[in-house]
Amino acid sequence: MTVVTLTTDFGLKDGNVGVMKGVIWRFAPHAQIADLSHLIGPQNIREAALVLARAVPYFPPDSVHVVVVDPGVGTERRPIAAQIGSQKFVAPDNGVLSMVLDRAEQEKQRVEIVHLTKPQYWLPSISNVFHGRDIFAPVAGHLAAGAPLVVLGTPINDPVRLELPKPVPVENGLRGEVLHIDHFGNITTTIRQEHLNGKQQVTVRLGGHEIRGLVRTFGDRPPGSLIALIGSSGDLIVSVGNGSAAGQLNVKIGDPVDVQYEPQQAN
Amino acid sequence: MTVVTLTTDFGLKDGNVGVMKGVIWRFAPHAQIADLSHLIGPQNIREAALVLARAVPYFPPDSVHVVVVDPGVGTERRPIAAQIGSQKFVAPDNGVLSMVLDRAEQEKQRVEIVHLTKPQYWLPSISNVFHGRDIFAPVAGHLAAGAPLVVLGTPINDPVRLELPKPVPVENGLRGEVLHIDHFGNITTTIRQEHLNGKQQVTVRLGGHEIRGLVRTFGDRPPGSLIALIGSSGDLIVSVGNGSAAGQLNVKIGDPVDVQYEPQQAN
Amino acid sequence: MTVVTLTTDFGLKDGNVGVMKGVIWRFAPHAQIADLSHLIGPQNIREAALVLARAVPYFPPDSVHVVVVDPGVGTERRPIAAQIGSQKFVAPDNGVLSMVLDRAEQEKQRVEIVHLTKPQYWLPSISNVFHGRDIFAPVAGHLAAGAPLVVLGTPINDPVRLELPKPVPVENGLRGEVLHIDHFGNITTTIRQEHLNGKQQVTVRLGGHEIRGLVRTFGDRPPGSLIALIGSSGDLIVSVGNGSAAGQLNVKIGDPVDVQYEPQQAN
Repeated sequence: MTVVTLTTDFGLKDGNVGVMKGVIWRFAPHAQIADLSHLIGPQNIREAALVLARAVPYFPPDSVHVVVVDPGVGTERRPIAAQIGSQKFVAPDNGVLSMVLDRAEQEKQRVEIVHLTKPQYWLPSISNVFHGRDIFAPVAGHLAAGAPLVVLGTPINDPVRLELPKPVPVENGLRGEVLHIDHFGNITTTIRQEHLNGKQQVTVRLGGHEIRGLVRTFGDRPPGSLIALIGSSGDLIVSVGNGSAAGQLNVKIGDPVDVQYEPQQAN
Repeated sequence: MTVVTLTTDFGLKDGNVGVMKGVIWRFAPHAQIADLSHLIGPQNIREAALVLARAVPYFPPDSVHVVVVDPGVGTERRPIAAQIGSQKFVAPDNGVLSMVLDRAEQEKQRVEIVHLTKPQYWLPSISNVFHGRDIFAPVAGHLAAGAPLVVLGTPINDPVRLELPKPVPVENGLRGEVLHIDHFGNITTTIRQEHLNGKQQVTVRLGGHEIRGLVRTFGDRPPGSLIALIGSSGDLIVSVGNGSAAGQLNVKIGDPVDVQYEPQQAN
Repeated sequence: MTVVTLTTDFGLKDGNVGVMKGVIWRFAPHAQIADLSHLIGPQNIREAALVLARAVPYFPPDSVHVVVVDPGVGTERRPIAAQIGSQKFVAPDNGVLSMVLDRAEQEKQRVEIVHLTKPQYWLPSISNVFHGRDIFAPVAGHLAAGAPLVVLGTPINDPVRLELPKPVPVENGLRGEVLHIDHFGNITTTIRQEHLNGKQQVTVRLGGHEIRGLVRTFGDRPPGSLIALIGSSGDLIVSVGNGSAAGQLNVKIGDPVDVQYEPQQAN
């Protein structure tokens, strides 16, 4: 009962996601398939990398994660598959695995990557514009059915990596940026819990607004309040209780976010 | 092959629904998982209660229904699980089970509810903002794998209940309200088939429009006609054949709907 | 492990798709269910026919494809099931199977169709407005569980067929039309690879724009370029690399598309 996940920018109306599932089940009839997102912004590799990295730790060992955000489909960009820690991946080599690889290095996980070069594991006919269906789905099916990574291609150790924005220390604080805006309008920043070293006495500034102190959860302030807190993946997030911070603050991905440490009050 | 359903306000772009599936399959690798809706309006407990109640009767016995519309996540609101008739439920205790409980009382079904108090059935680390992943999904996985309800927490009998609008009798008719507007723009009212006692000779008024008589189905009038009929869950609905009643009538949830009984024609 | 696919115009917010899955699993607890699309335009039978026909060839033998785009629900239109080649279908008899049937005739596949007339294979209570739940889902469940087609109804050989637009030859070229616009804004035309007889030296005109020559894939021109190429289903498509052709060209379904053959360059 291997789990396969799908992350694409295909949208939901044209049937392309369903087609990939049909192909996967041809090779792995018992696979459990979960959609992570098919609403990644078109060609937005960084967003796909983020959604994937946040989800992966919650999946059972030996899950196979397929990412098809693939502006270079049909060009020289390599199709790859990887074993990273207990999880497997199938994707174009364009940086979508960057955040998963970053964490693997921090946590000293096993990393093996192959360039997919064995057409006998693909569909017989390969379109130039839909490798999700013709290469990535069948390879995922073979992996889910137990094929070892090594048979699928030739080992590589130079996958494309994205430069991911990291917060920089400034006097008495940190400067980060807006990393993601979710369905609720919560604003995720590049500043993480571990960057704050346990400091709760902080002032957060973005979009011309200032938020003093962190709360524990959305309901700690009245609905409509602008709040800062640690999100479910350990990121500093900015929210409006029962509302949309992004709607209220008019910020966008990449906008600066400043954290200033406040003097600790004596008890 | 237990079925698990998911109903949330998470949207479809951020990967949070997929993460819940990954967690459920860690505990119940064979579970069949169906999405009911992830487009419940943010924090709209009543809409979730409605979508859930309409769907539940069609699922196999022992299905596990997970609802995560949870504005109070991380506060004192209780996480709960329940056995109601042949079906199981996992949700925050905020009223999302109200309509299912109403029906259970009418039909004298078995009802058992527990406050989830046993962290050994949760993920090891609990975020303050995503109990769907950290508490509700693992509990659903354990239930789907056969864990008895009683081991998950302590029995309660005072779940939060929503006040749900009921139609009121007026002279020679009923006054109800708009309960839901669906994807097609069909307008569901709080007036149900059983409230009409078999009367077909009615005039329906809402949004300044008047509809005389009920039809059997959409195609009984030419496309574009404004019609009233009994919907698939037994509710009085107002529709436009091949069109959007909500778009045409400019009504919103909670707007009044009047039904007037007309004199029966002699045969 | 039979695969079942679902194609509807139900949208994703009201729970109706999930309900159909619940019903299918009552009869076929092991079925793997894939969504093709639930964002077919309301009552858009032709769009459903297209999405279905493009997907079907990629599914395992004996998959069951359920289509519920059904403006005539509850009227005299017939509910049908079919065996077409290695695949099975359940749908209203309104033309949604037209493109699958066209291909079956070209490829001389086996075709058997029955009018669903045996209520013992349906839910006990049939609404006039949701046959997806009450007739099509249970029939699909029975088919997925192995019921033979013949027991479900009475054979017919006059299914409703859509007139599908075909390109017409003009002097030194072809005139087709816009068939579909996908999530990325790619414009699919009714002109197919086989109509071009291998010609690459063509000029494509639509929406007042002119594109000279076909490229192999999106990345063959700089981002933002207007390009023409053969899509993943063999159709001539018009795209903008990393952009939206539909957004840029202001065309709509049915607009004319002209292909002019250019003189072959001598080598």
